[in-house]
Amino acid sequence: MRCTALQLIDTMQLSELETPALLLDQALLRSNIDRMRARMTQLDVALRPHVKTAKCVEVALLDDGGARGPITVSTLREADQFAAAGWRDITYAVGVSANKFAHLRRLLQAGVQLGVLVDSVDGAGALADAFSDIAQGGASAGLRVHIEIDTDGQRAGLAPGSPAVLEVAERLRRAGLAVAGVLTHCGASYHCHGDTALRAMAEQERAGAVAAVERLRAAGHAAPVVSVGSTPTALFAESLPGVTEVRAGVYVFMDLVMAALGVCRAEDIALSVLTAVIGRRADKGWLLIDAGWMALSRDRGGAGEFIDQGLGLVCDAAGRMLDDYIVIAANQEHGIVAHRSGDPALALDLPVGSLLRILPNHACATAAQHEAYAVLDAQGAVGARWLRFGGW
Amino acid sequence: MRCTALQLIDTMQLSELETPALLLDQALLRSNIDRMRARMTQLDVALRPHVKTAKCVEVALLDDGGARGPITVSTLREADQFAAAGWRDITYAVGVSANKFAHLRRLLQAGVQLGVLVDSVDGAGALADAFSDIAQGGASAGLRVHIEIDTDGQRAGLAPGSPAVLEVAERLRRAGLAVAGVLTHCGASYHCHGDTALRAMAEQERAGAVAAVERLRAAGHAAPVVSVGSTPTALFAESLPGVTEVRAGVYVFMDLVMAALGVCRAEDIALSVLTAVIGRRADKGWLLIDAGWMALSRDRGGAGEFIDQGLGLVCDAAGRMLDDYIVIAANQEHGIVAHRSGDPALALDLPVGSLLRILPNHACATAAQHEAYAVLDAQGAVGARWLRFGGW
Repeated sequence: MRCTALQLIDTMQLSELETPALLLDQALLRSNIDRMRARMTQLDVALRPHVKTAKCVEVALLDDGGARGPITVSTLREADQFAAAGWRDITYAVGVSANKFAHLRRLLQAGVQLGVLVDSVDGAGALADAFSDIAQGGASAGLRVHIEIDTDGQRAGLAPGSPAVLEVAERLRRAGLAVAGVLTHCGASYHCHGDTALRAMAEQERAGAVAAVERLRAAGHAAPVVSVGSTPTALFAESLPGVTEVRAGVYVFMDLVMAALGVCRAEDIALSVLTAVIGRRADKGWLLIDAGWMALSRDRGGAGEFIDQGLGLVCDAAGRMLDDYIVIAANQEHGIVAHRSGDPALALDLPVGSLLRILPNHACATAAQHEAYAVLDAQGAVGARWLRFGGW
Repeated sequence: MRCTALQLIDTMQLSELETPALLLDQALLRSNIDRMRARMTQLDVALRPHVKTAKCVEVALLDDGGARGPITVSTLREADQFAAAGWRDITYAVGVSANKFAHLRRLLQAGVQLGVLVDSVDGAGALADAFSDIAQGGASAGLRVHIEIDTDGQRAGLAPGSPAVLEVAERLRRAGLAVAGVLTHCGASYHCHGDTALRAMAEQERAGAVAAVERLRAAGHAAPVVSVGSTPTALFAESLPGVTEVRAGVYVFMDLVMAALGVCRAEDIALSVLTAVIGRRADKGWLLIDAGWMALSRDRGGAGEFIDQGLGLVCDAAGRMLDDYIVIAANQEHGIVAHRSGDPALALDLPVGSLLRILPNHACATAAQHEAYAVLDAQGAVGARWLRFGGW
């Protein structure tokens, strides 16, 4: 895959696209970004967008008005691509293992101020040994080491009150590395029912991170960074005292999971998959479409916890939701659209060749199945093609 | 994404790879191919490999000994890539809509003998109108039109006895297009428990296709092609009288679903994801790994019907199965490995940086998340990097 680049194209109508194709409504993208930015301003905290959702330089440029400010990445490929496009302040928010140290060094040597995570004394020791030249102000002086804190029991990190928080910091200090601070992500926010639960989860995330950093500071570590975030907690936090930055990703596109949580309306979802009807099964009440799991992903979103939207909610070609029609099943390149009741009498009656749009359960997963966004202008025509990248 | 090409690399050890990485064991690949080819020889039927699984020129070249013979594709991107690499006999085994007709024509003009599917009079009419020059032996004379037959009630196609089978053929004949034959895929074979059920499903697939083509021939259509197949039905068919070709894809790699069905042993699976341990949670019995759903896919394989392997079965770095350890959950770039019992006392005790391999539930889905295969030689070292492609 190659470096992303803006491709200007003559305006096209949707009917000129081959399907399946990933559509991005630029007006909705902008309003989603504006909403998050406005909320961060109200909370008086910096935003470090997580570019793993879009993996697209153009989206990131829109997000911070071209400033190429701080970003979060989930892969070193993202770090490479954004560094090549001019970004210099990047946090890699996945625990790092020794087989990536050479790659970290290349990024540092390219001038990136690079944040990484550790959550064990062993991990801190391996990092400290590999980057011992930092203490001498060497080429890798741009390395920032954050201690990952677990504030929801869902994934990685140390409990805020764990003795290991101080042990990790001490291990780094012995190697001449200053602890940059703490970082946490409350992924449990994706399972919260209702505003009250979301607000409480945002406070749990904040309080855990702040408690951990206060222990570090009491032990003499400067630890200036307190990084928290997810789209739900960012938008539902009532206040964020002690937090220095918020990380969030999916807010740029939104998706059916965010809508199920009440974080956005389904009408706010900027991303969809354009698909064509390729067959009809009146006996079963099915439309066959050319968007299977390869185009939609296998992500089942909130099924089991919230409303089951199958593999995505169906809209007409103009993006108007057909509320009770979902993709009930998919193979690699085939999807099956039906009424959610399964009643054949309620099947959509559309001829082969008709266009539909499918709203994604999980925007990060659906976008990852595509290599570019067909960007829609205010008239609903395709005004640009923005490349995205994948890989590691 | 670019055209695939063989990349020779100096032999590397697995510890030199950045993770996650997609591994392909070349010896297992060859033996899986040999097994399918031998079975097709026994059954005296041609194989038209479905290249959607590997999407890789090198794998397809191995499969037919460099002959560049008949292949099946699931996207026109696959057709483009294989045509560019010299293939000339390609069947696009997904129903086609009008917004792909211009693309079909480009392939025909490039000299491809191109098979397509229709399963409705409307669809046949649209195709016939768009390719009316074929009857005059025009540039698109290489177009082969197959009628899709439904032999398992799972997806697209006409019932073998449907009046529409003859109506579609008649509609094509009026436009001067000969019906090439029939094509069916019994995806229900993926849900068969036991050899007897698999053999019965293979016969159901064969019998339905042959019944449909006999009706066409009785009505005066030559319809020479009878195309059937899936990996399970191909390997379990006892005989295939009347069938002219078998399509199958996943047999080259095999996967945990095929193993659950009894189509292969787990030891036969040629594909795995190399991953590094990035954290440990002794309290929960978890290892955190750097293979999340982005590297593994969200495919849940046979869960619910067969054994639940989570998001994949864990092996050591040499590929030896650790039978009761699975990826119990994943986020985008994080996976959680645990004992399938969930008992923290049974957690794997491995330091951060340890390498593991994850066997895929569904090889097509897992491979699709990667841009290349790290190809393992007989010594377990990486001897080549084979590119794959995605998109449409």
